[in-house]
Amino acid sequence: MLRDDDELLAWMVLSRAPRLDVSTLSRAFRDLNSTSAARLLHDAGAALQSAPLPPAAQRFLAGACASDAERAWLRHPHHHVVPFVDERYPRLLRDCSAAPVALYVSGDPAVLNDPQLSIVGSRNPTAAGRETAFEFARNLAACGLCITSGLADGIDSAAHRGAIEAPGITIAVLGSGIDVIYPQHNRRLALEIEKHGAMLSEFPLGTPPRAKNFPRRNNTIATLSLGTLVIEAAVRSGSLITARLAGEHNRELFAIPGSIHNPLSRGCHELIRNGAKLTETTADILSELNFSGFAHPSPNLGSEASGPADFGAGMDKGHKILLDALGFDPADLDALVVRTGLQPQTVSSMMLILELEGHVQAAPGGRYSRVCRSRSEG
Amino acid sequence: MLRDDDELLAWMVLSRAPRLDVSTLSRAFRDLNSTSAARLLHDAGAALQSAPLPPAAQRFLAGACASDAERAWLRHPHHHVVPFVDERYPRLLRDCSAAPVALYVSGDPAVLNDPQLSIVGSRNPTAAGRETAFEFARNLAACGLCITSGLADGIDSAAHRGAIEAPGITIAVLGSGIDVIYPQHNRRLALEIEKHGAMLSEFPLGTPPRAKNFPRRNNTIATLSLGTLVIEAAVRSGSLITARLAGEHNRELFAIPGSIHNPLSRGCHELIRNGAKLTETTADILSELNFSGFAHPSPNLGSEASGPADFGAGMDKGHKILLDALGFDPADLDALVVRTGLQPQTVSSMMLILELEGHVQAAPGGRYSRVCRSRSEG
Repeated sequence: MLRDDDELLAWMVLSRAPRLDVSTLSRAFRDLNSTSAARLLHDAGAALQSAPLPPAAQRFLAGACASDAERAWLRHPHHHVVPFVDERYPRLLRDCSAAPVALYVSGDPAVLNDPQLSIVGSRNPTAAGRETAFEFARNLAACGLCITSGLADGIDSAAHRGAIEAPGITIAVLGSGIDVIYPQHNRRLALEIEKHGAMLSEFPLGTPPRAKNFPRRNNTIATLSLGTLVIEAAVRSGSLITARLAGEHNRELFAIPGSIHNPLSRGCHELIRNGAKLTETTADILSELNFSGFAHPSPNLGSEASGPADFGAGMDKGHKILLDALGFDPADLDALVVRTGLQPQTVSSMMLILELEGHVQAAPGGRYSRVCRSRSEG
Repeated sequence: MLRDDDELLAWMVLSRAPRLDVSTLSRAFRDLNSTSAARLLHDAGAALQSAPLPPAAQRFLAGACASDAERAWLRHPHHHVVPFVDERYPRLLRDCSAAPVALYVSGDPAVLNDPQLSIVGSRNPTAAGRETAFEFARNLAACGLCITSGLADGIDSAAHRGAIEAPGITIAVLGSGIDVIYPQHNRRLALEIEKHGAMLSEFPLGTPPRAKNFPRRNNTIATLSLGTLVIEAAVRSGSLITARLAGEHNRELFAIPGSIHNPLSRGCHELIRNGAKLTETTADILSELNFSGFAHPSPNLGSEASGPADFGAGMDKGHKILLDALGFDPADLDALVVRTGLQPQTVSSMMLILELEGHVQAAPGGRYSRVCRSRSEG
């Protein structure tokens, strides 16, 4: 595809205009019998004045032009502007109300129409939650689903990483400008995502990560995807908002259940009560989406259905007893003393070793939870 | 109540007869214009011959008499035989098909008509599962629900122990004769259950714990209870059979979710997918059962943060509305649904509780009438 930079720069200007979306701009294009942003802006000043655009957009666009920063950004070969008239613009997004007129993409814009599953959840998950996100993303990406998320810490990052590990495709949707990576420490992850899919934003360059942008970002994540999987989310959280939006767009909703003692299970349980599909394995998702996928050579895929690994193989017998006593729910040292009949001192020092060896994780409130590692790591 | 031991011994003989249940024996009693087992057996040998009983039962009963073991067992003051014509026989059991003609009880037969929740689950649960069973049973028993289970190891035993700890009421339903405690190491627990409720069996004395008896035992557990709570169960397990039976009897089904890495969560997750109520707290159960409970002097009640606030305030507001809607003339459920605007399911379960609490009485034709008790009885 030949890039007409003047046209793309005009789209970048249009995407900065207030109150402009796919439906209002479509109407103007229909009236003008053209789909050229450049013509709308420059070649036909009179046309712009007569176009049925919202007054605020019209005022903004009169005399507006691309900035130096926009020109510089567009020069990079991995940077793309995808207007809604481009066939690479996501079909699922174009059909929804208030769809952005153009998307900023860094990476491969061809993936935007891939079948996607969004994975969202807490920014502060348990170790087990993070691993579940990684494993589900890795296996589903290996089956050909693109994993879409929001580049946040916790579940989001783990999902992106899992998809990259597969190796598969992943998309990060930002609540800031495409040139503003947030959180900043995810800059390296963002570069990896670019190589394995795309970074995506609907906000003009330089837009800071304002709180008011995130509902729109969440809506885009929910809209782009065939379904949304929620892994560990508090009852009042952005993840549940994304899930609600996915439901409103008639997308499938999946939620992972968990211990009734884990506060981050509450959000998922609420979703399940309200009709989200209780999800134990990736097969639950693939079958619900009727997604046959394609055979992707992954050594881990075959072992997915067989359940948990043999945790603690080769471990000292006492440690194994303690790990069995811990089970799959967080527990404090007192509970472990009662369950094992061991001395508190003994339990305490054994837990320290199990923690150092990566078998358990200390959680706030003096509780421990088991670390369920994947077979490839175990 | 005066005990007529000859009559009770005759019931013990009847309960040994093959192919005899409440419905066949009712028919015979109606024809003979009597509800006396002793008269059926001894005073009226001719009556027995002319009674419309199944041939196998008739052959067995001709000349059958109580054994020395039965006489010895009945002599114990805590041992009771509760025939279906006795008002202490559980109403919920009497209404189901193939109900046993008499029950063997050791403990207090008055508890058999208490509103009950059955708690069932794995014989080999995780430590957390065992603690969940104990805590749920303790809190629900403190709210006035009788906890019914099967005296098995694991979840069953933990549930009985929790109810005893409350202190509340608990019933153990056996798959063996009332004089055959299985598993044997639960003999001490059985004695505690006798003191805090009842041990119950429908099988003749000396019946060993045969595998073929357990489906009947499970059916009785499911039938006796307003609802069944499943805590940790494998996908193919007796607990799921009990749950299925509870569903067939239109009882409420509750299941505790858990980690997807815990194989014993699978059964509960399957139940939730099929419509069981995902249960995180005891409040989930109390509200679903519309169970107002009663003020039970328990030091633990206050610490149940998630439970309903106001047990001591007498009758639940919803129950009052329903009782007002019933008025003083018999009415059927449809009429009550129209009068209250409540869901049919809700009205049905609330009426069951009002019936068990003695506020209303079921009349022929599916109609209910109010029981106007004096204050001194209330």
